[in-house]
Amino acid sequence: MAILNQIKIINALKSVLPKEMERISLHEPSFIGNEWNYVKECIDTGWVSSVGKFVDRIEKQLVDYTGVKHAIAVVNGTAALHVSLILVGVEKNDEVLVPSLTFIATANAVSYCGAIPHFVDSDESTLGLAPHKLGAYLKEIAEVRNGSCFNKKTGRRIKAVVPMHTFGHPVDMDPLVEICNQYKIEIVEDAAESLGSYYKGKHTGHLGKISALSFNGNKIVTTGGGGAILTNDDALGKLAKHLTTTAKVPHQWAYSHDQIGFNYRMPNINAALGCAQLESLPGYILNKRKLAENYRKAFANIEGIRFFTEPTFAKSNYWLNVLLLDKKFVGERESLLEATNKSGIMTRPVWTLMHELEIYKSCPKMDDLSSAKNIAECLINIPSSPGLFRSND
Amino acid sequence: MAILNQIKIINALKSVLPKEMERISLHEPSFIGNEWNYVKECIDTGWVSSVGKFVDRIEKQLVDYTGVKHAIAVVNGTAALHVSLILVGVEKNDEVLVPSLTFIATANAVSYCGAIPHFVDSDESTLGLAPHKLGAYLKEIAEVRNGSCFNKKTGRRIKAVVPMHTFGHPVDMDPLVEICNQYKIEIVEDAAESLGSYYKGKHTGHLGKISALSFNGNKIVTTGGGGAILTNDDALGKLAKHLTTTAKVPHQWAYSHDQIGFNYRMPNINAALGCAQLESLPGYILNKRKLAENYRKAFANIEGIRFFTEPTFAKSNYWLNVLLLDKKFVGERESLLEATNKSGIMTRPVWTLMHELEIYKSCPKMDDLSSAKNIAECLINIPSSPGLFRSND
Repeated sequence: MAILNQIKIINALKSVLPKEMERISLHEPSFIGNEWNYVKECIDTGWVSSVGKFVDRIEKQLVDYTGVKHAIAVVNGTAALHVSLILVGVEKNDEVLVPSLTFIATANAVSYCGAIPHFVDSDESTLGLAPHKLGAYLKEIAEVRNGSCFNKKTGRRIKAVVPMHTFGHPVDMDPLVEICNQYKIEIVEDAAESLGSYYKGKHTGHLGKISALSFNGNKIVTTGGGGAILTNDDALGKLAKHLTTTAKVPHQWAYSHDQIGFNYRMPNINAALGCAQLESLPGYILNKRKLAENYRKAFANIEGIRFFTEPTFAKSNYWLNVLLLDKKFVGERESLLEATNKSGIMTRPVWTLMHELEIYKSCPKMDDLSSAKNIAECLINIPSSPGLFRSND
Repeated sequence: MAILNQIKIINALKSVLPKEMERISLHEPSFIGNEWNYVKECIDTGWVSSVGKFVDRIEKQLVDYTGVKHAIAVVNGTAALHVSLILVGVEKNDEVLVPSLTFIATANAVSYCGAIPHFVDSDESTLGLAPHKLGAYLKEIAEVRNGSCFNKKTGRRIKAVVPMHTFGHPVDMDPLVEICNQYKIEIVEDAAESLGSYYKGKHTGHLGKISALSFNGNKIVTTGGGGAILTNDDALGKLAKHLTTTAKVPHQWAYSHDQIGFNYRMPNINAALGCAQLESLPGYILNKRKLAENYRKAFANIEGIRFFTEPTFAKSNYWLNVLLLDKKFVGERESLLEATNKSGIMTRPVWTLMHELEIYKSCPKMDDLSSAKNIAECLINIPSSPGLFRSND
């Protein structure tokens, strides 16, 4: 029986990572720029809350950086997804196609709409939703009637799909767009992990009707907690701002609301942190890509495990770096997680697949989720903070 | 015809307010304590996000201050209300009794549960829900079957009531508790505006099964955006933390979730701001109560308008100070709002009554909402920031 060489693996990790750190996290923020200046300005001026110049500024910085026409800062990535789904028209009892391999927020956002997640398989070359497989599946289970897609088995409308760019690696969007056009399904990109990742030269978030970013503390850029909605659609952009600010009708003093909106706006103090973080983003990405390249080299000749690299059509932010065990070593993953964590290097498996959670077990799903299962069994995340790359290593 | 003396009113406001300010807001935060130190510590240590010592600390400070056993810091007051309603068992198609005179968040939180707000009248002596009137109304429309209350007209279960302590003045809770015990209705206190307000010697939030605070930028204490859930019930306290942190099952590295939870935790950087703010709260309340006393004196002899003072059973935080026009001057309110705002003193009417909003028009309601209407027609909020009281004025 083949046995995984844990020592070689730990040494490979150590060869890439800084020597002087006793414990290395999976992902920590770096505050090396104007963070304190901007946050201090909020406190000094009293503008810490929902109105303030840093909210406007972070939205402008996001538009400039991603090239998407509208950015709406919100309280977190889950809120961004929730409102995005509402805005493309997801309603109670609709189905929304979601990869089984994703963070819980993707499926929960669907549930918040009263809709039902419908789980689909992933592609081992991108770690994200598998478009061609989805196309074949829809041919079998779906039909288009009166301009909407319906699930022939459940009778429910399939309103949207949420490709999630796993660990910063873009889904293959072109075939997905084609399939969705054919089946009249709206695309909401879950770009929570892919700020700074490009698909065929364009920033992620351009090919869906609307998309969601996250600035949680473990993300490439953080606002403490936060997120944003991106869209090239003028009307949706306007509605996104309205819905995320309690749908209040503008008036000097009167309080009236014309929709059931949400208290999802980002506070100014969090936006201030984010403005500084975004200034540093290009540097973070350079460092993260170099760190990934070092990992790739260090693992090039280790048997039984490989470092996952970006899809050919993509330039990824390498948000969380990924090792994949060969199938035959799957049984040794827990032991490897234990050994690496014990040696001070934080590692972690991927999320439990959504269709395996008790709360989502009864949702519709593809019969064949084999690639998602393969990835889930073999994957290990390794330390990826932007501060870990040292040019003089 | 009687004409309101606008000049006298503006002069009365000016006699209380600082002279040197060109424009006086309704409510601005004061950052006079450790705000800088604590927030800087977050940035310096990298702990800005969902885990961190200030989240634990603010929860402890809230427990110490209010005397309620458990406090769970969340992303805003709306989120606190939403989860509180879920935790007392509000389900899809239930009805929840809500004052028509409230901020939209109270009604929206009910809607987020898939439940239906049922609007009830307020009491002109508290500005909050009228318990005795509610009792008489329930006698007419409700019946208790198998331990639950049902609306005889709609057939729906009436699961909960949300007394909101308007502008910091407590609802008369004792009769409400009695009525709710009789009718098997759970009480969720909307204490968004009443941090620092006491009902018969106990801090608001003690008499409901669970209650919600807000730390929005306009509140007596701010975290930029934030809120908290308070409860004396151990099991609910534990569940509140679980549900607001995506219902993740604790594990060193594995990601599993046992409920459809929410991403509602408060980021550490916001909690840091709040910890400093809470340290200053006793001083804010002293100042706000003195400011209110000055207003009371200044308006004591002005015809046609009166300053609203705390109910006899309460010690209020006087979050937002209130003037009430005599009925005969209601037609002059818009003109008074214009004149005061034009003179640099921000004033505002109360919110549009919930049952008058298009989105909530078709919800069940009391036939007689006359007190809510009276208050809504006559009320004007005036500047109330803790920094406005000057001891040497």
